[in-house]
Amino acid sequence: MAYPEKFTGFQVESAETWQNFHKNQFQPKPFGDFDVDIKIECCGVCASDLHTINGEWGPQHYPLAVGHEIVGTALRVGPKVTLIKPGERVGVGAQSWSCLNCRQCKNDNETYCAEQLDTYGAKWPDTGIISQGGYSSHVRTHEHWVFPIPDGLPSTVAAPMLCAGLTSYSPLVRNGCGPGKKVGIVGIGGLGHFGLLFAKALGAEVWAISRSRAKEDDAKKMGAVGLIATNEEGWNEPHRMTFDLIINTANSFDGFQLAEYLSLLDVHGKWVSVGLPSGDGIEMRNQDFLPNGCFIGSSHLGSRRETIEMLKLAAEKGINTWVEEVPISADNLKTALTRLSKHDIKYRFCLTNYEDVFGK
Amino acid sequence: MAYPEKFTGFQVESAETWQNFHKNQFQPKPFGDFDVDIKIECCGVCASDLHTINGEWGPQHYPLAVGHEIVGTALRVGPKVTLIKPGERVGVGAQSWSCLNCRQCKNDNETYCAEQLDTYGAKWPDTGIISQGGYSSHVRTHEHWVFPIPDGLPSTVAAPMLCAGLTSYSPLVRNGCGPGKKVGIVGIGGLGHFGLLFAKALGAEVWAISRSRAKEDDAKKMGAVGLIATNEEGWNEPHRMTFDLIINTANSFDGFQLAEYLSLLDVHGKWVSVGLPSGDGIEMRNQDFLPNGCFIGSSHLGSRRETIEMLKLAAEKGINTWVEEVPISADNLKTALTRLSKHDIKYRFCLTNYEDVFGK
Repeated sequence: MAYPEKFTGFQVESAETWQNFHKNQFQPKPFGDFDVDIKIECCGVCASDLHTINGEWGPQHYPLAVGHEIVGTALRVGPKVTLIKPGERVGVGAQSWSCLNCRQCKNDNETYCAEQLDTYGAKWPDTGIISQGGYSSHVRTHEHWVFPIPDGLPSTVAAPMLCAGLTSYSPLVRNGCGPGKKVGIVGIGGLGHFGLLFAKALGAEVWAISRSRAKEDDAKKMGAVGLIATNEEGWNEPHRMTFDLIINTANSFDGFQLAEYLSLLDVHGKWVSVGLPSGDGIEMRNQDFLPNGCFIGSSHLGSRRETIEMLKLAAEKGINTWVEEVPISADNLKTALTRLSKHDIKYRFCLTNYEDVFGK
Repeated sequence: MAYPEKFTGFQVESAETWQNFHKNQFQPKPFGDFDVDIKIECCGVCASDLHTINGEWGPQHYPLAVGHEIVGTALRVGPKVTLIKPGERVGVGAQSWSCLNCRQCKNDNETYCAEQLDTYGAKWPDTGIISQGGYSSHVRTHEHWVFPIPDGLPSTVAAPMLCAGLTSYSPLVRNGCGPGKKVGIVGIGGLGHFGLLFAKALGAEVWAISRSRAKEDDAKKMGAVGLIATNEEGWNEPHRMTFDLIINTANSFDGFQLAEYLSLLDVHGKWVSVGLPSGDGIEMRNQDFLPNGCFIGSSHLGSRRETIEMLKLAAEKGINTWVEEVPISADNLKTALTRLSKHDIKYRFCLTNYEDVFGK
C-alpha cells in the first residue's frame, strides 16, 4: 500500500459554500508514538457533519473535511501502540483525543475530559493543525480512539455505529436498558434507528415515539413492539408512568410539550437527550417533574470500552444498520448532504468506493 | 383526654383574606378502620401553607386550616391499626393517603401514587370532606402516614422535619448522599437548612450555595464546609465538575443561569429541585447538559420508610432544627405567615401552646 506524506480529502471552504466539496491535499498532525495511520475504506455521514460545515454550530476552521464514522485499515502504528496491529480493520468515531490522565478519563468518561478533541475541526495541541475527518484518504488517530472491527460486521454496517450508534448505545447501557425494562426512542432518524436496534438487542421492550405513524413499519422491523404517535389526541395516556428510560433523538423542540413526554416515565425514570437542536431551548418547570420525580439529561458519545462492547454486540446479534451506500465524490457529497438537510434518508448514508478516488 | 365529635382549627376563608385566621369547628372525615386520631401538640409552618392559602397555587376549598408538620399524641386507633398505639407521640406530614395497592405504593413510592392525597385541602374519597391540616386541635389520618416520634427528639424539632425535613432528606438518600460524596444545597431557607443538616449527618462533604454570603456563618453551623456565593464573578470555576449531587431548594428562577449551576456537577451528577417556584419556568438547552452528561429532576416528599429512618437519624445524631416557636393564635398566625411571605425567618416556625387555645 502506498504511504503518502500528505493526506487527501473532500473539503468545504466556507459555511456559505457548504455544498461544494473540493478534493484537496492537507498536512496531517505529526506522527506520534501512540498514533495509528488508517487508510479509509468507508465513512458514515452524520448530521453533525452538516451542522458543522453549514455554520449552524458556529464558526469553523476552513477548509475542512468532515466525517467521523470511519472504517479502514491500520497502515502503520507508532512505537508505543499496543492496542492496534498494522493490517487490522479498524474504526474511528467522533472523538480522537483526551488527556487520559484526569478523573474522567480514568473512569470511562473520556468523552467528558476537559481536553477532549473532536475527530474533525479541532486544533491538535502544540501544532495548530486542524483535525480532518473521514471524507479523506487517511486519518491519523491516537490508538485509544481506534477500535478493532469484529469479523463478520460489514464495514458499511459498522461505520455509522461509530458516532450515531455509540451515541444511542451508551445512554442505553448507562441507564439500565435490558430485559424487563420498557424503553422509548423519540425520533426515528439516524440516531433513533440505532436506539431501536440496540435497545432491542439489549433485551428491553422498546417503543418508537414519533410525530406520526409514517415510520411505524420501519420501527417495528427495527425491533419496536409498537409506535406511539404524538399527533394523536391523548397519545400519552395509555403509557403514563410506564417507561423506565426514554432516549430523545429529536432534532428540534418545535411544538414539543415536554410535560406530556415526561408523563410517560415511571418514578425516577430518565429522559436522555442525544440530539442537539440548534434553535431555542425549551421552557421547563419543576412541576413538570413532580408527578413521577423523573430526571432529564443528556449524553455525549461513549467510552472506548463501550464502543468495543457495542461492536461485539452488533456482530453477535447481526445488527444491521439501515444504510444507503454512496460512492464518494464531490457531486455525490453535495447530493447526500443536501438530502440530509431535508431529512431525506432512511436512515444513514455511508460513503464508499474510496479507492476509486484516492487510489489503492 | 376529652374526645370531641368535631375538631377545631384556625381556618382561612378566602385567598384575598389569607392573613385572617378564624377559629372554627369542622367535621372530620368518618373514622375508618385504619385511622388514628391525634391530639395536636405543635405544628411547623411550611411555605406550602402560605402558597396554598394566598392562592398562588391556584383555587382552594375554603374555609381551610393548613399545616402539615404535625406532632401530637395518638388518642384512639381504628380496629385494624397495627402500626400505632394509643398514647404514642406521633407525627403527620404533608401526605395522608394513597391506594397502597399500586406499583408505586408497593415500591416505597406512595408519594407518586395517582390517588395520593394531601394532608390539607384535598377531598377525602367517597365523602366530599376536605382534609384539614395541623393549625387545628386534632387530625385524623390513616396509620400509614402516622409516624412514631423517637424518644429524645423534641416535638418542635421533629415537627418541621415531617415536610421540610423529609423533602430534603429523601432526594439525598435516593441519590447516594454519604461519605465520599460532595453535595451542594442551593438556597438556605427552611428546606435548605435541613438539606445541610441531613447531608452532613449522612456523612457527605456538603456546601451551601447561595446568592450572597449573608448566611455563611449559619450554613457552617449547620454543617457546610463552605459557602459558594453566586453573586461573585467566576463563582462556579473552582468547583467545576466536582459535585455528585445538588439539591435545589430555591423558590425562584429570577436571574438563574442554569448552565452555570450545572457546570458544578461531575459526570452524570444530579440536580434535584425540591422547591416549586410559582412563576415562569426556565429555558433549558440540551447543550447545558452536555459537558458532563448531568441530570436534572425533582422529588416529591418521601416514603413512610424514609420518614421513619430520617427521624431515627435525627434522634441518633441530635439534629437540631433551627426553629422559632410561636404560640398558636389568630394574631400570631397572621404575623408568622406575613413574615414568611417576606422570607423573614431563620429557618422554621413551629406553632406551640395548643392546649392554651384548644383545651386539655
